[in-house]
Amino acid sequence: MNTISLERLFSPRSIAIIGASHTPGKLGYDVLKNTVQYGYKGEVYPINPTASAIAGRVCYPSVKQVPGNIDVAVIAVPAVAVASVLTECGEKQIPFVIIISAGFKEIGEEGKQHEQELLRIAEKYHIRLVGPNCLGLINAHNQLNASFTAGMPKAGNIALISQSGAMNVAMLDWAKQSQLGFSKILSVGNKSDIDEVECLNYLATDTNTSVIMLYLESLEHGQAFMEAASRITPSKPIIVLKAGASQQAQRAIRSHTGSLTGSEEAINAGFKKCGVIRAATIEQFFDYGLTFSTQPLPRHDKIVIITNAGGPGIMAVDAAQYTKLDIFKLNTNLQQLLKTQLPAAAGTKNPIDVIGDASAERYEHALNVLLADKTIAGAIAILTPQTMTQVNLTAEKIVSAAKRYGKPVLASFMGGAAVQSGRDYLEEHQIPNYETPERAVLAMDQLIKQVQRKIKPFKFPKISSHNVITAQNHPQISTITAEQLLMKYKLPVLRSQLIKTVADCNTIKQFPVVIKIASRDVIHKAAAGAVLLNINNVTEAQRAFKQITQHVHKKFPKAEIEGMLVQKQIPLSRKAKEVIIGMKRDVAFGPVIMFGLGGGMVELLHDVTFGIAPLSKLEAEHMINAIHTAPLLVHNDKAAIVQALLAVSKLALDYPNISELDINPLMVHPTGKGAHVIDVRILPK
Amino acid sequence: MNTISLERLFSPRSIAIIGASHTPGKLGYDVLKNTVQYGYKGEVYPINPTASAIAGRVCYPSVKQVPGNIDVAVIAVPAVAVASVLTECGEKQIPFVIIISAGFKEIGEEGKQHEQELLRIAEKYHIRLVGPNCLGLINAHNQLNASFTAGMPKAGNIALISQSGAMNVAMLDWAKQSQLGFSKILSVGNKSDIDEVECLNYLATDTNTSVIMLYLESLEHGQAFMEAASRITPSKPIIVLKAGASQQAQRAIRSHTGSLTGSEEAINAGFKKCGVIRAATIEQFFDYGLTFSTQPLPRHDKIVIITNAGGPGIMAVDAAQYTKLDIFKLNTNLQQLLKTQLPAAAGTKNPIDVIGDASAERYEHALNVLLADKTIAGAIAILTPQTMTQVNLTAEKIVSAAKRYGKPVLASFMGGAAVQSGRDYLEEHQIPNYETPERAVLAMDQLIKQVQRKIKPFKFPKISSHNVITAQNHPQISTITAEQLLMKYKLPVLRSQLIKTVADCNTIKQFPVVIKIASRDVIHKAAAGAVLLNINNVTEAQRAFKQITQHVHKKFPKAEIEGMLVQKQIPLSRKAKEVIIGMKRDVAFGPVIMFGLGGGMVELLHDVTFGIAPLSKLEAEHMINAIHTAPLLVHNDKAAIVQALLAVSKLALDYPNISELDINPLMVHPTGKGAHVIDVRILPK
Repeated sequence: MNTISLERLFSPRSIAIIGASHTPGKLGYDVLKNTVQYGYKGEVYPINPTASAIAGRVCYPSVKQVPGNIDVAVIAVPAVAVASVLTECGEKQIPFVIIISAGFKEIGEEGKQHEQELLRIAEKYHIRLVGPNCLGLINAHNQLNASFTAGMPKAGNIALISQSGAMNVAMLDWAKQSQLGFSKILSVGNKSDIDEVECLNYLATDTNTSVIMLYLESLEHGQAFMEAASRITPSKPIIVLKAGASQQAQRAIRSHTGSLTGSEEAINAGFKKCGVIRAATIEQFFDYGLTFSTQPLPRHDKIVIITNAGGPGIMAVDAAQYTKLDIFKLNTNLQQLLKTQLPAAAGTKNPIDVIGDASAERYEHALNVLLADKTIAGAIAILTPQTMTQVNLTAEKIVSAAKRYGKPVLASFMGGAAVQSGRDYLEEHQIPNYETPERAVLAMDQLIKQVQRKIKPFKFPKISSHNVITAQNHPQISTITAEQLLMKYKLPVLRSQLIKTVADCNTIKQFPVVIKIASRDVIHKAAAGAVLLNINNVTEAQRAFKQITQHVHKKFPKAEIEGMLVQKQIPLSRKAKEVIIGMKRDVAFGPVIMFGLGGGMVELLHDVTFGIAPLSKLEAEHMINAIHTAPLLVHNDKAAIVQALLAVSKLALDYPNISELDINPLMVHPTGKGAHVIDVRILPK
Repeated sequence: MNTISLERLFSPRSIAIIGASHTPGKLGYDVLKNTVQYGYKGEVYPINPTASAIAGRVCYPSVKQVPGNIDVAVIAVPAVAVASVLTECGEKQIPFVIIISAGFKEIGEEGKQHEQELLRIAEKYHIRLVGPNCLGLINAHNQLNASFTAGMPKAGNIALISQSGAMNVAMLDWAKQSQLGFSKILSVGNKSDIDEVECLNYLATDTNTSVIMLYLESLEHGQAFMEAASRITPSKPIIVLKAGASQQAQRAIRSHTGSLTGSEEAINAGFKKCGVIRAATIEQFFDYGLTFSTQPLPRHDKIVIITNAGGPGIMAVDAAQYTKLDIFKLNTNLQQLLKTQLPAAAGTKNPIDVIGDASAERYEHALNVLLADKTIAGAIAILTPQTMTQVNLTAEKIVSAAKRYGKPVLASFMGGAAVQSGRDYLEEHQIPNYETPERAVLAMDQLIKQVQRKIKPFKFPKISSHNVITAQNHPQISTITAEQLLMKYKLPVLRSQLIKTVADCNTIKQFPVVIKIASRDVIHKAAAGAVLLNINNVTEAQRAFKQITQHVHKKFPKAEIEGMLVQKQIPLSRKAKEVIIGMKRDVAFGPVIMFGLGGGMVELLHDVTFGIAPLSKLEAEHMINAIHTAPLLVHNDKAAIVQALLAVSKLALDYPNISELDINPLMVHPTGKGAHVIDVRILPK
C-alpha cells in the first residue's frame, strides 16, 4: 500500500470514470453526469471502449490511453469486469480507485474471493481502494460529486463517512431540507482497504472539517479507532451512529457472567474512552451534527430557557432532568434587569416566560440581559405562534444576540407554516431549530458534555507476547496458579491452601476456615453445595471434605476433583459487599474490563459497567460510580476496588493469551479496610 | 350548574359573538370571521353596542336584543366588561358561554376574585362556562371554528382538549402539515367550570371521536379523572401530554422517605391505573395521536420489519429492545414463501431485507406473505430512496396491503424531497409515516400496549369519615396504637411491649429481644443508636434501657421518651429482605401507596413504585415487580408483600384522616415464610 495522503483522493486534479455511459439510468451515466455538472475544475476522462465521446468529452477505450496523469479512477462496470480495469489502473499508476460496483463480499463466499483478488491487484500496483459496493465521494468545497447520488450539498464543515450507501442517500436527501453543510462525504462500502480509521486520521488535519459524522455497521479495528479518535475529539467532535446496540440485551440474557462482556459493550466503553459521541437514534445523529457544526462550545453548564408559553418551557425542563444542563434559578439582580422591560406577569426565574403576547423586543431584551452575564453559558429560545407573535423579527433578534455574545443559542419555533419563515431565517444564519424543545435540550446537553470530557490523546502499549500462562489441557487455570498470578499484581488474594486428601486436613494450621471444592469443572461452587463456612477444627474439616466430595460427585459425576481449597475465614463487617471484576478480550478493542455488584446480584440485575484497558484511575472511578446500585457502596472501600481494577487492567495487557478472567467475589470491606479476592477464574486462549 | 350535555356546546344551533368587531387584529374580529368563514350552518349573531352590522350580518347591542334563542355565547371583551355581559347571557338563558377574555386567575389575586365573580353569576343563571383565558372551540364535523385560531383542521376522529392556548395553536399549525384529522377541539383555559373530566365524560359517547388527546398543566380532580378514563380507555385511547414530570426528581432528593410520594408520582400511578397513555415528549404526543387515529389494534405482539437497507432495519430492532414488540425470527415456512419472489441475497429472518434494488413488487410480495399469516400482528415498512426505488408505487402497495389484511402497518420513508410524494400518498391513505424507523417502533409499541392493558371501569368507594385516629397533640401516633391499627387489618405486626422504667425489664417474658426507644420524636431509630439487638436476659435489658436513654438524651435533648419498646427477636434467614410500604394522601388522587426495597436502600437508590388505592392484587404484584431491584426479591415471600400492600390500601381508604403511613421495614422472609412489620409510623392530619 502507498502512504499518499487522502488529500489527493478528496481533491483530485483529474478523474477517470470507468464505465462512463451515454444511457440515462446506468451507473456510469449518473456518475459521469454528477462529476461534471456541479463545477468541478479538474480534468474528467470518460472511459468506455465503445464510445468516442460522452457528454461532449473525448472518451478513451482504457485509462491507459488517457494522455495525462489520473489521480482518481471511479469504476462503475459489472463485477466480473472490475479486476481487469483495476489492473489497467495499476499500469497507469493511478493512486486512488473508487469501486462503486457491487457484487463482492456482501453477496457471499464467491464475492469475497473476488474482493480478495482486487486487493491483490491493488497491493501489486500500490493502489489505494475505496469500496467496493459504495456510492463514491463528494467534496463540496471543490464542487466535486464523484458518486451516483444526485445533488451537491451545501458546502460546510461536516465530514460524513458512511458504511451504508442507503443511509448516505437518505441523509443527503434530508440534509437538503436543512442547512447542514458538508466538507467531504465518503461512502466506504465494504471497506476492503480504506476504512473509517484512515478517514479519521486524514480528517484530523483537514481544515475544512470541524465536525465528523460516522455511520458504522461494523468496527474491526477498535484500538486504532480509539487512538485516532482520542487525538481528534478534543478539538473536533466525532458523532457516530452505530446499528446493533440491542445485541447487548440478547447477550446479557446468557447466564454466565463472563458473557456479559462482548463487542457492543466494548464499542460503548471504547467510544467513551476516546470521547466519541454515540447517537442513539437517527434523529439524534442529525440533531447533534447540526448543533456542533453551527454552535460555539459553552463555557459551563448553566443554561437559560426563554419561551412565550409556559407549557413548552416546562417540557424543556422535564427533558433536562437526566442531562448535564443546569436550569438554575436566576439571581435577583438578573431578575430585576429582566423585569425592567418585561410585563409584570412574565416569569423571570428560569424558564423565562416572556408570555403569550411577547414582541420580538421582549426576546431581544431577555437575550441581551442573559447572554451578557458571565454566569450564563447559553440559551434555548422557544416560540409558539400566537396572535401577537412576530415570528420573523424574533428570529432576527435571536440571530443578532447569538452573534453578539458568541454563546450557543438553540431555537425551537413550534408549529408548521406559521413559523416556517422564522425557522428558515434562523438556519440560514447558523441558529439550529428543533421541531420540539426537548430535542433542543438534548442537543445543548451534548455541547456541554463535549466541554466536560477531558480526553487526552493516547496510544495503546505494544503487546509483549513473552508472558504466557497455560492451563494444561483444561479450559481453566487452576485456582492456586490463578491466585499466584493475581498476587504478582498485588491483588489482595485471600490465599487458598490445596489439600488433596481427608488426611491432609491435619495440615490446616489456623481455624476457623472456609473449605471449598478444588475443581475446574465446578464453576458456581456455592450453588453446587461445594462451599462450607465456619469450619472450626480438624474433625469438622474432615467431615466437610467428605460432604463436599459427595455433593460434587452427585451433581457433577464427571468433574475432576483436585481436592479441597482451604481459606482463612475472615471476619466480615455487616457492611462488607461482594463485587465482581471481570475481563474479556474483545477481538477489536482488546481487554474489556467489567465491574458490578457481585454474587447472585450480577446475573439478576445486569447492572454492570465496562472499560477498556489500560484503565486510568479516573476511568476506574467512573466505572464504579456508573452502576445504578453504586449508592450501596457508599460505606465501602472504593479505593481498594480502584486498585483491583487497575491491577486487572495491567495483568490483562501483560498476558495477551488470557481470554477471560473473573474475580467473583471481590469482598469489599468498609472504607479504609481494603478488599479480598475470594475466588478467581482465568481462561487462557 | 345545569346538567345539559356538552353536545349543545359543540354543536350549537346559534352562536353570539360578544365583542364582535370591524377591526382586523382585534379578538372580536378574528372570532367572528372564523365562526362564519368555514361553512358553519347555524345562526351567528354579532354583538356590539356601537355597530349596526358587522361582516354583513345584523349586529345587536346586547344578546338580550337577539330575537331567537342562543345556544352558545363567545365573550371577547376586556376583562372588566365580562361580568356584565355574562349577566346578560344569564338573563337571555344562554346555556353555554365561552370566555376567551384573559385577565383572570392567571394574573394573580385580583384576577382570581374576578373569576370567582363570574362563577357566581354563572351559578345564579345556570350557565356552563368554558375558560376564561381560552382560545374557544372547533368542531371540524360541522365546520364550526368559534375560536381565534385561524384555519379549519381536517375532519377526523381525534378530540383535542388543551389547557394551553399556545400549545393548541402550535399543534394545529403542525397538524396542517400532517394528515391529523380532528373531531372536536376545545381550549379549556383556566378551567373555572368545564374541565378535562367533564370533556372526557362527554367524549366517551361522542361517535365522531375515537382517540382523545389531552394537553394538561394541572390535574385537580384525579379520582374523577381516573373514573372517567377507566370507562373510556378500553375502547378509545387517551393520550396525555402533561408538563412537570421533573418535579419528581426534585422531590425525590428530599431525605425523608414520606416525601417520596407526591403529586407527579400520583399522576403517573393514576394514569396507569386507568389506562391513560402519557407521552414523554411533544413529538411522542403527535406520533401516538396519529398512530391511534389511523391504525387498527394488533391482535398480539409479533411484528415484522421490512426494509430495503440493513442499517435502518437494525436501528429499528435496537429501538425495540425496551418495548413490548417481539421482532421474532420467522419460521422456515414463511422464509421459504418469501424467498419465492425475493433475490437470494435478501434477508428473510426479520427484519426482512428486500435489499437496495427492491422494486415495489418486492415490498408487495413480502407484505402479502407476512400479513396473511395469523402469527403476525403488524408490520413496519422502511424505505430509503436508492437508485431503483419506486417510491410512489411502493407507497401504493403498502396502502393496499394494509387495507387487505386490516392489520396495523406503519411506514418510515427516510429522506427529504426524494420520498415526499410517497409520504404524502401514505398519509392521505391513513398509513402514518415517521421521519425515522425508531419513531415507528415506539408508535407500534403503544398499539400493542393498548391491547395488553386490561382496564375495567371502576368507581372509588365512598369515603366513610366515621373512622378517625388521633395522635393527641403530636404529629405522630404512638407506636403501640399504630401497631394495634395495623393488626386490625391483619398486617403481620411483630408486636411491641412498652416498658416505662428500668424496673419494668423484669416483665419481659421471653428472650432474646430487641429493645428500641419509644419516642415519637426519634424517627430514624437505628441511626440514632436507639435500637439494640440480641438482648438475652433481664440484666442486659436493663443495661440496654439505660444506654439507649443516654444516647437519645444526648442526640435529641428535647425528645419526649415514653420508655422502651421490646420486640421478640425473630431468627432471620440470610435471604430475608427489608422492604418499605408507604402511603401518602394526594390531594387529587387520594391515597398513593409506595413500595420499595427498604432500609437505607430506599433513600439511596430511589427505586420505588407507586399505586393508587384501592389496589387490586394484580396492581400490587405489578408494583413489586416494577422496581429495578425486583430480581433481588426472587427468593422472598412476595405473596406476603402483596397482602401487606392490599391491607395498607384498605386501611388508607378506611381512615381518611391519616395523611402518611410508613411501614419500614417490612421484613420479608423466604418464599412461604411470610413477613413481619418491624416498625411503623402513622401521621394523622
